[in-house]
Amino acid sequence: MDASGEHREQSVETHRSLKDYMDARRPAVEAALEEACRDRAGVPERLAAAIRYAVLAPGKRLRPMLTIMAAEACGGDVAGAMPSAVAIEMIHAYSLIHDDLPAMDDDDLRRGRPTTHIEFDEATAILAGDALQSMAFAHLHQSTPDVSRSAALIGTLVTASGPAGLVGGQADDLDAEKRTVEDFGGPDSALKHLEAIHQRKTGALFMACAAMGAISAGADSRAVSALTDYAKAFGLAFQITDDLLDCTSTDEQLGKRTGKDDGRGKLTYPGLMGLDRARAHAKATICTAHESLQLFGATAQRLTELADFVLERTN
Amino acid sequence: MDASGEHREQSVETHRSLKDYMDARRPAVEAALEEACRDRAGVPERLAAAIRYAVLAPGKRLRPMLTIMAAEACGGDVAGAMPSAVAIEMIHAYSLIHDDLPAMDDDDLRRGRPTTHIEFDEATAILAGDALQSMAFAHLHQSTPDVSRSAALIGTLVTASGPAGLVGGQADDLDAEKRTVEDFGGPDSALKHLEAIHQRKTGALFMACAAMGAISAGADSRAVSALTDYAKAFGLAFQITDDLLDCTSTDEQLGKRTGKDDGRGKLTYPGLMGLDRARAHAKATICTAHESLQLFGATAQRLTELADFVLERTN
Repeated sequence: MDASGEHREQSVETHRSLKDYMDARRPAVEAALEEACRDRAGVPERLAAAIRYAVLAPGKRLRPMLTIMAAEACGGDVAGAMPSAVAIEMIHAYSLIHDDLPAMDDDDLRRGRPTTHIEFDEATAILAGDALQSMAFAHLHQSTPDVSRSAALIGTLVTASGPAGLVGGQADDLDAEKRTVEDFGGPDSALKHLEAIHQRKTGALFMACAAMGAISAGADSRAVSALTDYAKAFGLAFQITDDLLDCTSTDEQLGKRTGKDDGRGKLTYPGLMGLDRARAHAKATICTAHESLQLFGATAQRLTELADFVLERTN
Repeated sequence: MDASGEHREQSVETHRSLKDYMDARRPAVEAALEEACRDRAGVPERLAAAIRYAVLAPGKRLRPMLTIMAAEACGGDVAGAMPSAVAIEMIHAYSLIHDDLPAMDDDDLRRGRPTTHIEFDEATAILAGDALQSMAFAHLHQSTPDVSRSAALIGTLVTASGPAGLVGGQADDLDAEKRTVEDFGGPDSALKHLEAIHQRKTGALFMACAAMGAISAGADSRAVSALTDYAKAFGLAFQITDDLLDCTSTDEQLGKRTGKDDGRGKLTYPGLMGLDRARAHAKATICTAHESLQLFGATAQRLTELADFVLERTN
């Protein structure tokens, strides 16, 4: 077997064990999400149904997995990380509902199903997103009896979700759609702008996953900081590969509309750098992610594999 | 002077002193709101402008005032109540932005100015609302160093804002617009339904004002509970008088579109009870509010006056 064949073998093996790991943890995540979204007194039926539809849509649960892996890297366990994992997934679900709205990205397909405003209606979708944001903070508050830890977790999540995080990234992303590469002063400036958008739009929440997983395990600030660095690089690589997938896959493969980025003249990594350079950039970013894990050794094995997995999606 | 003239004299006097009281406290509230909405790194300019536009719109600041009065009734002060007052006003501003959206109440005028989605655009309005919700929790988190108190305040506000509070009330309100009085099983059932809507749509946040004001003053659970009862009655009376004003005022008087409720066939107190019975109901509800204050004596004087003020808006 030649070297490249050997690498392929190893990569398949890593995938299998990472897949096993994620498959083993997913039922607990799904059960916790189900429980967090079950019917409660005073919640209108249709609103509750829209909330469940959005949160319980089939998905990889990448953010909860990252949260759990970060906790485990710091000696924590699944149960300790679960309140953070659930809260983050709720914030993620709310942001997808609102991003898909006609006034925003106007998407009708998400995870292979109609988006929430198509399945229900626009008003219900807006309100389901609003409700999920408050439910995320309520869940953290109610599930973390240690008030100091609860405060640290809530503080981390509000910063990631707010106008200098998730919401700001989406606002700048929508704004960028109205501008050309020349408006930004050429490809290099546009690339910096794109990176700043993604650092908030997707990166901030990945960083919160890592930080909150670590905090929930009682990690010290050095570990929280190293894992946040990992997640920053991980999130960037994730976005680059997402852009790559958008221009090389079909709707059926991804369960959402593809080729939209290009049709809209949207800033993307392959659009600004070309496919090959974008792939190389993703690879270099994953190297940075690996380096951030040096502090941890074997406990961070799954995080190393998760970074590799993101990269290999596009190979 | 006859008895009725005497009552009128006294009422004008109460108003003047309540007005003086609110005028004296409003600049501190405005300054705190300005500070909470000032430019921050990473927040897109247009988003920040929309947030400021919505929060700093001229208004009575009824919710911050109620929060401060509740704190004072429990021996607290303005400074201690201010983080709660600001956070609640941010939640209130976010809910107004989203309620005014075309997919919701579709309003173009609010506090005498174009609504946020008219002045900016729909996407920016949705995002400004989203940002304000997280900013409210971030503000409470950052401004309350005592983690136990911060947890109690955040817990109170998330419950009031969530799907069994503010958001649920708005969802049921929109749903009720599609139904007739007969769909509810006649006027009495419709009235119960209307009360359940308002208890969440406006009542929950008024109750949070009173509870959070009391908590910020370190009040015991008996005082928190009495003030919450007061605010529940206050909120109900407020809504009844709001309905009365909608059908008896002009756009110019209120700074928003009036007569809309009737045009839409919306459930309202005067619509279901007639003007006179609705006025009597508001009066009885204010009596309940007064009774809830018996625990406090003189420190609750402003809360007594505030309840009277709500009632007298429609006389």
